[in-house]
Amino acid sequence: MGRIGVIKKKQRVALAPARRRMLRERMAGVPFPNLLGMKMVKLVPGEARISMSGVSKLHQYQKIVHGGAISSLADTAATFAALASVPDGFDVITIEFKLNFLAPFAKGKAIATGRIVHLGRRTCVSEVSIRKPGSGETIAVGLFTMLCFQAAPSR
Amino acid sequence: MGRIGVIKKKQRVALAPARRRMLRERMAGVPFPNLLGMKMVKLVPGEARISMSGVSKLHQYQKIVHGGAISSLADTAATFAALASVPDGFDVITIEFKLNFLAPFAKGKAIATGRIVHLGRRTCVSEVSIRKPGSGETIAVGLFTMLCFQAAPSR
Amino acid sequence: MGRIGVIKKKQRVALAPARRRMLRERMAGVPFPNLLGMKMVKLVPGEARISMSGVSKLHQYQKIVHGGAISSLADTAATFAALASVPDGFDVITIEFKLNFLAPFAKGKAIATGRIVHLGRRTCVSEVSIRKPGSGETIAVGLFTMLCFQAAPSR
Amino acid sequence: MGRIGVIKKKQRVALAPARRRMLRERMAGVPFPNLLGMKMVKLVPGEARISMSGVSKLHQYQKIVHGGAISSLADTAATFAALASVPDGFDVITIEFKLNFLAPFAKGKAIATGRIVHLGRRTCVSEVSIRKPGSGETIAVGLFTMLCFQAAPSR
Repeated sequence: MGRIGVIKKKQRVALAPARRRMLRERMAGVPFPNLLGMKMVKLVPGEARISMSGVSKLHQYQKIVHGGAISSLADTAATFAALASVPDGFDVITIEFKLNFLAPFAKGKAIATGRIVHLGRRTCVSEVSIRKPGSGETIAVGLFTMLCFQAAPSR
Repeated sequence: MGRIGVIKKKQRVALAPARRRMLRERMAGVPFPNLLGMKMVKLVPGEARISMSGVSKLHQYQKIVHGGAISSLADTAATFAALASVPDGFDVITIEFKLNFLAPFAKGKAIATGRIVHLGRRTCVSEVSIRKPGSGETIAVGLFTMLCFQAAPSR
Repeated sequence: MGRIGVIKKKQRVALAPARRRMLRERMAGVPFPNLLGMKMVKLVPGEARISMSGVSKLHQYQKIVHGGAISSLADTAATFAALASVPDGFDVITIEFKLNFLAPFAKGKAIATGRIVHLGRRTCVSEVSIRKPGSGETIAVGLFTMLCFQAAPSR
Repeated sequence: MGRIGVIKKKQRVALAPARRRMLRERMAGVPFPNLLGMKMVKLVPGEARISMSGVSKLHQYQKIVHGGAISSLADTAATFAALASVPDGFDVITIEFKLNFLAPFAKGKAIATGRIVHLGRRTCVSEVSIRKPGSGETIAVGLFTMLCFQAAPSR
């Protein structure tokens, strides 16, 4: 997981254009979010917004999107909100989360918004809500804990 | 979500062969678990065991299986453990869960075991652990709350 | 736990003065919140605000308020937010919750705000945040799931 | 919170008598667990068992023990299981937990058992179950995440 490091207050800077570009490219190149059809909609320090469509390949037997697909969307939003908030050279990994499912999601689009509620020296906490864009109906809400660590230098 | 019903004590019977067959067929026919390559390994009252392989299409950018794919496996194990425990004519839906990730899962096989720790009149609680079969290393542990309800009669 | 009942849409009415008075009296008369020094600050449909002071009898060995005391405050805020939202004649009980601790709380006052994010037919979901009034620093955030049921008629 | 440190594999030793004595004394001297009447029943590496009685001062208005008191018991068991597992000189703090309430607890005794399911370099995960000693009925189950850190030297 790379070397251990702690985030100092003064390192909590704005999201540099190079880092934002790197994160957008990372999102576009990751197999699993791609398999599920996720797209990044917004990325600013402290917040990431990711969309996913309720296509039939994501369904469970009740013909609604599987809770695991919704969890995947939520985890991705939480993770990128954190990646957009830690200093350059730091990486994050979800160590645990909790999600409440509030309404079924069968078709159309879902937008997950991940927001940082705490950025400590070693951990980061994101809250996530997933909504249908038109009605504003909430599909799920969750809380994610992430560990922050110094990324291994790329070779 | 079908009519509301409560589970009576005397209804907590063994898993009838017809229901077990129905559940195995349901598992085999559901799009999302199939997309992720899940396979049912065991199904008895109070317990379900599901396997998934750490193939690259399930990876996130650190080249380990995405937390959302692991969550999907866990949710499926929790759900089928519950479906194998409620009386015939009842269905379940996950209303919330929490998962802790303990070790990265990159390749090989993962086995999720869902076990019912509580079957009430309206809710069911499953604990899930996901392990690598050889080493016995634990990848994740979680707790799932499900709502039990009378399934709509098939037409 | 009383008879089972479901909440109909039209029952989601405003908090009647008599019910608000009943809930405030209930809060004042409950042993455990009293033991911890909790006080109701606000009660409107969908929201409850409860205060608690960081006195030394609530401390753990690091001389900060014990996580259990903070959890008690959070659970009370979540519960009263729900009680202020369900129809008259309905009661609620927490079936599970998750709480993240973000900053230590040693002394002074903490205010917990419980807000209903979902009121279904049988369940209710509250989010809770606990803050220090002056600085606005967040002590903890959480998500609570409650079961709603028809209260037994008082005898 | 003291200096940051990581736990090395070779440091995961047995619970030395001096540390066990220190932890038992710490438990006995902490205000909040004392206020709730908690008593340490067992303490071995990887496991702690704590008892609490269902006395009326711990009740909520339904005349059962308040969920916050049950959470306090669970958190204490999780914490001491971790303290009995980290190397000497290390301390822990709960950063988040989730608890499911399975059966009401009104009177008699409850025993909480905290068990370590993961001890990493910086985090520790405990699972907790709370049972009534005679019947074996489970009152609650939970999962706790703790941060491990090098304790400040005592002065």
